[in-house]
Amino acid sequence: MKKVVVDQHTVPQAYPKKWKKVIGTGRLGLALQKEYLDHLAFVQKAIGFQYIRGHGLLHDDVGIYREIEVEGRRKPFYNFTYIDRIVDAYLELGVRPFVEVGFMPKLLASGGQTLFAWEANVTPPKDYGQWASLIKAVVSHFIERYGEAEVVKWPFEIWNEPNLVDFWKGADKEEYFKLYQVTAHAIKSVTPDIPVGGPAICGGSDEWIVDFLQFCHRERVPVDFVTRHAYTSREPHKVTPDYYYQELAEPEKMLNEFKSVRALIEASPFPALPLHITEYNTSYSPVNPIHDTVCNAAYLARILSEGGDYADTYSYWTFSDVFEERDVPRAQFHGGFGMIGLGSVPKPTFHLFAFFNALGEERLYRDRETVVTRKSDGTIALVAWNLVTEKGDGFDKTISYVIPAPADDVFIKRQTVDEQHANPWKTWKEMGRPRFPSHSMVDTLRQAAQPLMRTARAKSEAGFVTLDVTLTKNEVTLIEIVPVRDETDSYVGLDDALITSY
Amino acid sequence: MKKVVVDQHTVPQAYPKKWKKVIGTGRLGLALQKEYLDHLAFVQKAIGFQYIRGHGLLHDDVGIYREIEVEGRRKPFYNFTYIDRIVDAYLELGVRPFVEVGFMPKLLASGGQTLFAWEANVTPPKDYGQWASLIKAVVSHFIERYGEAEVVKWPFEIWNEPNLVDFWKGADKEEYFKLYQVTAHAIKSVTPDIPVGGPAICGGSDEWIVDFLQFCHRERVPVDFVTRHAYTSREPHKVTPDYYYQELAEPEKMLNEFKSVRALIEASPFPALPLHITEYNTSYSPVNPIHDTVCNAAYLARILSEGGDYADTYSYWTFSDVFEERDVPRAQFHGGFGMIGLGSVPKPTFHLFAFFNALGEERLYRDRETVVTRKSDGTIALVAWNLVTEKGDGFDKTISYVIPAPADDVFIKRQTVDEQHANPWKTWKEMGRPRFPSHSMVDTLRQAAQPLMRTARAKSEAGFVTLDVTLTKNEVTLIEIVPVRDETDSYVGLDDALITSY
Amino acid sequence: MKKVVVDQHTVPQAYPKKWKKVIGTGRLGLALQKEYLDHLAFVQKAIGFQYIRGHGLLHDDVGIYREIEVEGRRKPFYNFTYIDRIVDAYLELGVRPFVEVGFMPKLLASGGQTLFAWEANVTPPKDYGQWASLIKAVVSHFIERYGEAEVVKWPFEIWNEPNLVDFWKGADKEEYFKLYQVTAHAIKSVTPDIPVGGPAICGGSDEWIVDFLQFCHRERVPVDFVTRHAYTSREPHKVTPDYYYQELAEPEKMLNEFKSVRALIEASPFPALPLHITEYNTSYSPVNPIHDTVCNAAYLARILSEGGDYADTYSYWTFSDVFEERDVPRAQFHGGFGMIGLGSVPKPTFHLFAFFNALGEERLYRDRETVVTRKSDGTIALVAWNLVTEKGDGFDKTISYVIPAPADDVFIKRQTVDEQHANPWKTWKEMGRPRFPSHSMVDTLRQAAQPLMRTARAKSEAGFVTLDVTLTKNEVTLIEIVPVRDETDSYVGLDDALITSY
Amino acid sequence: MKKVVVDQHTVPQAYPKKWKKVIGTGRLGLALQKEYLDHLAFVQKAIGFQYIRGHGLLHDDVGIYREIEVEGRRKPFYNFTYIDRIVDAYLELGVRPFVEVGFMPKLLASGGQTLFAWEANVTPPKDYGQWASLIKAVVSHFIERYGEAEVVKWPFEIWNEPNLVDFWKGADKEEYFKLYQVTAHAIKSVTPDIPVGGPAICGGSDEWIVDFLQFCHRERVPVDFVTRHAYTSREPHKVTPDYYYQELAEPEKMLNEFKSVRALIEASPFPALPLHITEYNTSYSPVNPIHDTVCNAAYLARILSEGGDYADTYSYWTFSDVFEERDVPRAQFHGGFGMIGLGSVPKPTFHLFAFFNALGEERLYRDRETVVTRKSDGTIALVAWNLVTEKGDGFDKTISYVIPAPADDVFIKRQTVDEQHANPWKTWKEMGRPRFPSHSMVDTLRQAAQPLMRTARAKSEAGFVTLDVTLTKNEVTLIEIVPVRDETDSYVGLDDALITSY
Repeated sequence: MKKVVVDQHTVPQAYPKKWKKVIGTGRLGLALQKEYLDHLAFVQKAIGFQYIRGHGLLHDDVGIYREIEVEGRRKPFYNFTYIDRIVDAYLELGVRPFVEVGFMPKLLASGGQTLFAWEANVTPPKDYGQWASLIKAVVSHFIERYGEAEVVKWPFEIWNEPNLVDFWKGADKEEYFKLYQVTAHAIKSVTPDIPVGGPAICGGSDEWIVDFLQFCHRERVPVDFVTRHAYTSREPHKVTPDYYYQELAEPEKMLNEFKSVRALIEASPFPALPLHITEYNTSYSPVNPIHDTVCNAAYLARILSEGGDYADTYSYWTFSDVFEERDVPRAQFHGGFGMIGLGSVPKPTFHLFAFFNALGEERLYRDRETVVTRKSDGTIALVAWNLVTEKGDGFDKTISYVIPAPADDVFIKRQTVDEQHANPWKTWKEMGRPRFPSHSMVDTLRQAAQPLMRTARAKSEAGFVTLDVTLTKNEVTLIEIVPVRDETDSYVGLDDALITSY
Repeated sequence: MKKVVVDQHTVPQAYPKKWKKVIGTGRLGLALQKEYLDHLAFVQKAIGFQYIRGHGLLHDDVGIYREIEVEGRRKPFYNFTYIDRIVDAYLELGVRPFVEVGFMPKLLASGGQTLFAWEANVTPPKDYGQWASLIKAVVSHFIERYGEAEVVKWPFEIWNEPNLVDFWKGADKEEYFKLYQVTAHAIKSVTPDIPVGGPAICGGSDEWIVDFLQFCHRERVPVDFVTRHAYTSREPHKVTPDYYYQELAEPEKMLNEFKSVRALIEASPFPALPLHITEYNTSYSPVNPIHDTVCNAAYLARILSEGGDYADTYSYWTFSDVFEERDVPRAQFHGGFGMIGLGSVPKPTFHLFAFFNALGEERLYRDRETVVTRKSDGTIALVAWNLVTEKGDGFDKTISYVIPAPADDVFIKRQTVDEQHANPWKTWKEMGRPRFPSHSMVDTLRQAAQPLMRTARAKSEAGFVTLDVTLTKNEVTLIEIVPVRDETDSYVGLDDALITSY
Repeated sequence: MKKVVVDQHTVPQAYPKKWKKVIGTGRLGLALQKEYLDHLAFVQKAIGFQYIRGHGLLHDDVGIYREIEVEGRRKPFYNFTYIDRIVDAYLELGVRPFVEVGFMPKLLASGGQTLFAWEANVTPPKDYGQWASLIKAVVSHFIERYGEAEVVKWPFEIWNEPNLVDFWKGADKEEYFKLYQVTAHAIKSVTPDIPVGGPAICGGSDEWIVDFLQFCHRERVPVDFVTRHAYTSREPHKVTPDYYYQELAEPEKMLNEFKSVRALIEASPFPALPLHITEYNTSYSPVNPIHDTVCNAAYLARILSEGGDYADTYSYWTFSDVFEERDVPRAQFHGGFGMIGLGSVPKPTFHLFAFFNALGEERLYRDRETVVTRKSDGTIALVAWNLVTEKGDGFDKTISYVIPAPADDVFIKRQTVDEQHANPWKTWKEMGRPRFPSHSMVDTLRQAAQPLMRTARAKSEAGFVTLDVTLTKNEVTLIEIVPVRDETDSYVGLDDALITSY
Repeated sequence: MKKVVVDQHTVPQAYPKKWKKVIGTGRLGLALQKEYLDHLAFVQKAIGFQYIRGHGLLHDDVGIYREIEVEGRRKPFYNFTYIDRIVDAYLELGVRPFVEVGFMPKLLASGGQTLFAWEANVTPPKDYGQWASLIKAVVSHFIERYGEAEVVKWPFEIWNEPNLVDFWKGADKEEYFKLYQVTAHAIKSVTPDIPVGGPAICGGSDEWIVDFLQFCHRERVPVDFVTRHAYTSREPHKVTPDYYYQELAEPEKMLNEFKSVRALIEASPFPALPLHITEYNTSYSPVNPIHDTVCNAAYLARILSEGGDYADTYSYWTFSDVFEERDVPRAQFHGGFGMIGLGSVPKPTFHLFAFFNALGEERLYRDRETVVTRKSDGTIALVAWNLVTEKGDGFDKTISYVIPAPADDVFIKRQTVDEQHANPWKTWKEMGRPRFPSHSMVDTLRQAAQPLMRTARAKSEAGFVTLDVTLTKNEVTLIEIVPVRDETDSYVGLDDALITSY
């Protein structure tokens, strides 16, 4: 049995919740939908992310870029009806835009290459002047509507994954740098205080980072932060229109990716730039069933625990299964990225985030499968997990904690997500995988999605609380050890032994 | 191991939810409060009682009866400001008044005897003419505001527990009959279609029923229903200002009480009158801790299961711990009657009602510890309980069910309340019994109040589903056996074995 | 001065609110949006339409028809994720679908002709067998989810405006009849109790009605109702990408259109078929500023007053400016069809409907500019209007009403929409026509959108109330004459003359 | 015609909204009620007061002070169940307690003298030690629940109107000083940072202020602020159980009262102490019809305009007609203090506050009937009023404003409360003064309670906007002159002249 002993002389480490700063979302146009906003309200109430980042600001469904004919000449027409509604909704829910600048409006596109079911145009602008005007118009409108003091808090990231041929025509690096340069200058021309950054790459193309920063340095192009994405699934071993199956690499792979970019930045002409991981998840496919599983949560636990050591923010992709890259979702569970499934059913990964959200600001102990923290009121809050990527039953693991007691008497509150609890995907399979479940089926899934809750009372011994915690396969558990101020003596006449059956 | 076998040739019995027709509440004046209405909304959304009955319609806090001086003479003044607000709120929440006519406005009282912390006056009117005018004014106002078609659906019960000296001065039967006569005639003089009844007695004074019906027959006084109360706690073995400890009699005692009144009615000149049990619970004390326990739910299960065999309605006393008979509640848990504790924390008895609410309209089987039903969609819904009034651990009991399968494949959903689950009182004790818990403590109690949820898939064998159900001490469990239409084959490319760890 | 005298011996006419049975909406896919649902909730709370009819059930954004490859063969795949969400939302808001079957999913289309900014495909199916399978799948799914008892209340109308070349390839009548035949049979094969109808034509193509009914008769094709549309704007005198200017024909033109179809039906082999006007408005263009004006309301008043004489239902096109046929709305006001403008700003036409909704079920008097009704509580409710299509100021008109008094004392409540009141379009122009108004501007528009409210007390004379009502240009007014039960004498000590300044 | 000319060189004065810092309320126990909280939410959304002050913190209905018997001895028992719920609700609505310490719990009272229908005990404590313990317990509990950082923002005022024999036994000044001394020390013993003050007197007893401050100085008793009340009604000329009629003194009288206390403070040993007017209104009677009138608003306008010159805060008594000092309200309108009448009907005085809330932070001009301000976005916001205490019609008054234009084009938005508009009391009288109005009657009153809204467009001339404003009898008007950025030219193809009737 593994033992975790927290010494009384431990110097606590600051443990800021960097995983909480940004959250990812499908394209912005979806933010007009009620179901999407219901999910976002759910997540914001429970967790409270600070920023939200999604694709498609300039995609034609948001409708910003249009043209009209005036006296025989075509002129740009900027329509902010929908983007205003979207940003208004975000701000009302307490989350600011982490702006991703892209994709290309059809009328400005230099080519017809598109991506996703919703046909994101991934070609460079046919006219960089018109593009710059569009960018300036958008930024100016934001400032007019929300005030400069607000908008300078929104980072602007230029494009998405330009190092992939599907996401940027030809994965053309030089063309991307040009786009970046024009866009960054356009933004800064409105106000120099808005932070801009890139290159938003995905996968192992580290030279893009190096070259990008060199380019900015050489060409004196503004750059306020560096971004990249991280997914740790291996190459798929089976792909069908509706499924994508992959093995997961070790969590270290992702952490190392964070770390390596940090090193590249430090070695660059801009060694102090912040690093934002603007997307991460296990798999990059929105039809990989892993996302619906408890294993996904157990896998990501370590990323939440350690990712903040290297990245200034990292943004889970995505909060909701309201998502259309592979068409309208075809079933209640379909391998979507969302923490929240259709019908507002929270998946295990949602609870992982909620559990980490309950941790304290001081870290007392951490290893690869647990992190122990202290809150300002003295409560010890710890998360432990038992990632098992092998098949089959069993794999229970016990950790024995010895922790300085916050009081002589403590109340212990434990919440558990595992294969048997808070696993609506399992329940859904038992129900026969109803694609379009009835209201009462969805109610059952929501009930099944609640973590197992166990509470107990314990006494400290010699200033320590000892706790043996057995973790089942892929369990993620949150344990809170709360100091007790016992008021029992104030109840005059109380005698539990006189109550029937007690 | 006990075996419950439901034959395929069983003729289902109709199983109407008579326990759901009426619910009790502390005095009506409390219905002005937001916390009260929050609890009622909670209960109505989950269960949906049809009527609500509470004390104090004419108590001075509702303020209906006042007097004013006009040209040197005192005249009655009827103020409906608050009662309108109260009844409006009830109707908005989908529940109608089951009117209890009482207690006595101070200005009409013949004496000063009062009851409860809120000082309900329990003396007869000093002037029966003024009393009759008051009753007519109230009924007329109800009809003017809500329409006659609505108001004739409200039963009017005259007074509360007149056979007890604390509740009616001298427990004077003849005086009660006079009050009943005057009141019934006053109501019927406004419209003969409003149902009136009594005598609302409590405890074993059966002769009141007999005499009351004889009186009505002899004096040709209208009577449309008969009411009494039923509590099965024995004499208290310890009483303090804040606690009242009693043993529970067998559930049969209560059922027999229902049954015996039914027999008295049948032997009376009005053999077909409906019987309304207008209050029941384990203990009649609002500071008996039994009400907070799982045992309370396990005890009452049989009453819910069988009470409707004898009573037309029976009304659990009460839905909420917003209650003041023994002063403002002095702690989060204090032995109050409520299904819902302060801060909207549901107690085990709430779930008992919710579980019975999930049963079907056809009863397939019933004994003293389980009832098996079928819903119109074929789902089998059963409740089982394991009442243990002895102290100590253990007492597990297993029931083996053999039930005609609603389909070859079934989905099994089980919800459990027991000493370890949905038992916020236990969690509260572990917390040190905080009297005035913080918001986060109340959140923990609400989480701890959720039933354990377990789901599974099963196959029928030879047309039957076999289910071994182990019940822990005082467990109450709801099991739903739902026919499955399996859609798995429609998922092209699906192969769970390719998902990491599955 | 015109005089309207209602004789005491007038026999009241039944005056059912047929205009309230159905309401139109932009394509169903928009019903996923929060803003859309906010507007619908607003309208339902105030008015409560029974059915809603919109385009695009089968358009690709709702996503019902897809194909998947199974073992090398393409097979249809029916996705109900979005349509379930849409219909769920409608039913929750108390409004049922009046189903319009169309347009063509791209994968089933025989050609590429599309309509509207959202590219509705208007070509016949490339394979009528696959089309029939789709229809059966949709209807079967509706029944499975909502129950047959519910779905048989939904009328199914086949296609939209097939007599127009833009809406049905070639406006090919024979092809339409074929589509109708296949679709009607497909629906009826699932359950014969669902009502089906057509031909949903627009404009003066009366021979379509005649031929359609002949065809159904000859070919024994089921037909349960007849539908057509009605717009009374003349040919446009100016058209730009963002504006469409037309003169309005007399309201009689629309009423005559209703009447003439009724006559055609009566002369047909199905003389008793119901007539549903499934769309009507002044102009058929979603960028005609008339829709934002008070004149639009004054014009339509007569249609609401008299349309029900000829049609069984008639459906105003549309309830909301959330609408995309001409692109995302480009400004707060843009000539959209909606009763409710962006940001939930009600337009004058909304109040017209709200005013008619306040009328009674008995009609006492009607002419071309007023209708006088009585409610079940005796209240007289009348609407009057003063349609002025000429330019310039002036045009006040006074009507003197002499109406049997519901009581000696009456309370008069008058609400007014006119050029100066409840005219947010005027206020918006004063503000400089902000395209994307700030929140505080929208608040101002909502305030400006409230009707003028005036109240007074009057006495009847010789059993009549006399009321001189002056109507300003394009005013629509609702006047309620309510019987008063004066309680003043019950206020002992009251003396208004003792209040400062009174 | 009066002329108000604002010079372009005017130096704007700071114009903080001191009237908005505190609002009064009936006894705290009423804050448990839903209707009360609905009104408070209404007011907070529209205006947003910072503090709320009401009677009865220690009254028995809140239930804080109780006693229990422990081993034969009575001990105090402090029950915070209700006060927690009340303060929680306040904080949730964004308003902090301005704590009034009083009245006397029955069990601590030295005598039986009570006040109000709810029987506030106004006698000194029978034991100052027990009183001090109670105060410490309450303050300590507040700190435990809400945190010290929060509670030190709550002023604690000792008792209410001790200079009146009805409010403090014998109006005994020495006894009050003793109470003050004990209470202030008790509070400060928990934390010295909580501000304490008094003497909360009412009426012209200026020597109380002088003596109180001398006493504090002499005895070294903490005092952090000075409080008094101000009502300007003259002696009543008629009093009945349900009515209280008085004439109003000139508004100067109240302002002079504010001013004179300020002078007394400045002449005292604590010249810098803040002055809080913890109650003010026209009449001090809760059954004076003046409170329901437009005249009440017109009268108080000057107090809102100028009161902040002398007082640090002044607290309108009260926000709501949910109030019981003279019994449960006996009719919809009954002369209650509330800005908001029963059923959430706003009275004219509510709008007065809403209008002043719309003013800017810079004052450009002020006289006895108008105040002109500028907001940070350049908007000119002015309020004007026409107080007429004489009877009869007429009394129109015109003011001609000449104000520096915030732009060449301005949008003018005017809202009006006068005898004809936003006067639900008038409408209610027309309805026959229904005591307990039906829901539809209350809807009508709410509609009638909306201010008249008028909008227009104007052009500046030579840098000034000229505006002739005619005020009817007792009108209070808010006029906002908003700079216009006209976007009309951006609408390509726009031609209003082509719209029918325009």
